[in-house]
Amino acid sequence: MAELTPVPGAVTAPRGFLAGTLCCGIKAHKPDLALIVSEHPATVAVTLTQNEFRGAPTYVTAEHAADGQARAVIINSGSANTATGEQGLANARRMTEIAGEVLSLPAGEVLVASTGHIGSQLPMDKIEPGIRALADQLSPSGGEEAARGIMTTDTFPKALAVEYPVGDTTARIGGICKGAGMICPNMATMLCFLTTDLAIPADLMQRALREAVDHSFNCISVDGDQSTNDTVALFANGLSGVQVEDAEDEDYEAFARALGYVAQELAKMIIRDGERATKFVTIRVKGAIDFFHARRLGRAIANSTLLKAAIYGGDFNWGRLASAVGAAAQGADPALVTLTLAGITPWQRGRNLPYNREEALRRMAEKEIMIEVDLGLGAAEATVWTCDLTPGYVEYNAEYEVSLFAET
Amino acid sequence: MAELTPVPGAVTAPRGFLAGTLCCGIKAHKPDLALIVSEHPATVAVTLTQNEFRGAPTYVTAEHAADGQARAVIINSGSANTATGEQGLANARRMTEIAGEVLSLPAGEVLVASTGHIGSQLPMDKIEPGIRALADQLSPSGGEEAARGIMTTDTFPKALAVEYPVGDTTARIGGICKGAGMICPNMATMLCFLTTDLAIPADLMQRALREAVDHSFNCISVDGDQSTNDTVALFANGLSGVQVEDAEDEDYEAFARALGYVAQELAKMIIRDGERATKFVTIRVKGAIDFFHARRLGRAIANSTLLKAAIYGGDFNWGRLASAVGAAAQGADPALVTLTLAGITPWQRGRNLPYNREEALRRMAEKEIMIEVDLGLGAAEATVWTCDLTPGYVEYNAEYEVSLFAET
Repeated sequence: MAELTPVPGAVTAPRGFLAGTLCCGIKAHKPDLALIVSEHPATVAVTLTQNEFRGAPTYVTAEHAADGQARAVIINSGSANTATGEQGLANARRMTEIAGEVLSLPAGEVLVASTGHIGSQLPMDKIEPGIRALADQLSPSGGEEAARGIMTTDTFPKALAVEYPVGDTTARIGGICKGAGMICPNMATMLCFLTTDLAIPADLMQRALREAVDHSFNCISVDGDQSTNDTVALFANGLSGVQVEDAEDEDYEAFARALGYVAQELAKMIIRDGERATKFVTIRVKGAIDFFHARRLGRAIANSTLLKAAIYGGDFNWGRLASAVGAAAQGADPALVTLTLAGITPWQRGRNLPYNREEALRRMAEKEIMIEVDLGLGAAEATVWTCDLTPGYVEYNAEYEVSLFAET
Repeated sequence: MAELTPVPGAVTAPRGFLAGTLCCGIKAHKPDLALIVSEHPATVAVTLTQNEFRGAPTYVTAEHAADGQARAVIINSGSANTATGEQGLANARRMTEIAGEVLSLPAGEVLVASTGHIGSQLPMDKIEPGIRALADQLSPSGGEEAARGIMTTDTFPKALAVEYPVGDTTARIGGICKGAGMICPNMATMLCFLTTDLAIPADLMQRALREAVDHSFNCISVDGDQSTNDTVALFANGLSGVQVEDAEDEDYEAFARALGYVAQELAKMIIRDGERATKFVTIRVKGAIDFFHARRLGRAIANSTLLKAAIYGGDFNWGRLASAVGAAAQGADPALVTLTLAGITPWQRGRNLPYNREEALRRMAEKEIMIEVDLGLGAAEATVWTCDLTPGYVEYNAEYEVSLFAET
């Protein structure tokens, strides 16, 4: 397989993409508006939240991406434009019109995404001049700054780009994403924007994106639930000269692999920024019937507040893992299951194994915790990432709305 | 309908039931063993956890209750006898044998339940003499003390009994239960023991119990998940002289109503004792397709950590309610949905309604919070009870195992 080399630039690492970011005043002193655009025509693939209380921007984005053609996305943070009725929908449309105007593009070539407070109307008097000012900020080196423009409770920007050889040229894939309230990921808007300078038919790109999202962002989510505004969009403009034609191509495989890598690394950055989290937890489920069976169990374990509280406290409480597995994995047979927590196996195919409690507590004190569950049923596996649950998380989210209005 | 009158005595309020409680040493200084027995033959109905990692006692109880006949239940706290393999199963059986011996009953007439730490073997050297000593403690006024014997992290015993007239006599139903880690109820063992001096065929009683549990304990649970040891058992010995024959009887209706009341009040006591909780939250879902549809949504709302953190903080964050509804209620249409939080309706059938923010915050500061969701789809409804999520809950559960060994 071709080597993936990290390159700087995030979404502007691929050739022919520009990005700009500024503070238009939705928040007091932080970037709250970002624009990403391809200088040339581009194909687009999108995956959106399944939440029935979807934000207005997700409707407009779905509409504009339906033909597989779009060149730009306008994004604001600070307000999600969700549960905002007809006015919210009109505002989302208006954002694509203004962006289209400054970019000399039809509004239908522009996607839109919003994140932040639910239930308040967008301050269009700030956003409209903001988008117009953005036109002057667009830069082929603006990709990493754009990662700042989409942050809400994130504590660091999340950006990545890779390059890999194809024949005598190279292809690049870049991405930025945001999301932080990841203890309960179904409630925290996750936005991700990806760019590539490959050329690839829209339907094939949609397939590659779906696959990449299934193994990355959907591995940090719970029970298929999603926030109101979750959006992943991938633009491809072909400027590298690399052309991917069909799914049997070696080039497709290289592209899918690079895309999967970027998506997974970005997803893990979200977990590392989990609100007030202190530990990074990897949950590997093996011996499942199929990938989705394994992932469903992994997500359920990732959603056990009691287990996550124990991990925060450094408690080797494997009984909570057993209970979480039993509650979620209908069809699991304890006589076939093996549980491993922080490298120690206290339960193996129906039997208790002795372990050294002091060693167990020492391992639980580490910052990276590995959980392995072998169901003993099949050959499929999945990996899910989560973080611990802390008193700080609860305190933080008890005052979120207050702090949103007061500080940002 | 016949008036329900509260009476003292809990599980020994119905005629012909005895109970005893003592500390056998599983815990250092707290009651950890309880025995409830009918002096006369009794029918029994049981509902058990659906968790695949079920505790050993649940297998033995299912076996002994299969014929609808049982007269006693032996219960220990401090150790759940779960994930304990063959040895655990033998120990659970042994508990019923010893209890049967001291009560002069076949072991098959004795049920068994355990709650506490998962993954450790029962200290049978303490339990065996404990059960033998219990024989001397049995008393017709021991019902309320038995509620103490089954506590784990509970801060108060949960007990209730009611009486209602039937012809020129009365029938009684009594109950005790335990459970406290109810923020994530699927991980906290819930035990409930109910007695009545009615006579009722076992299959009809099973039906009444299933119905009562569906509207009570299963309305404080999440997504059908349950802990490893959840057990509800109802004994009927007929000593009141009241005979319920079939489901069309007026007497059946009165019995089902009284049973439903006792189960629901006990379930609400569990929520009021939620670990480190500060608020009692009632979630009423209306306009659903059927009861289970409504209850599924109610449970999902009850499991939203972000919403519960907001309730703890007194934040009128109705957007988190909208998001929770949208994530859980597949098929819900925001244009039909009405959301009411603490008596204020910020979203009505697709439109934002203005509200007074100060008034909203004042109401959110109260100890009892009502959430109402009208899906606008059908005529069915369900009520689910939960509590807030607090930093104290996380701190408490981060050290549970430590405190279990150190203090109890």
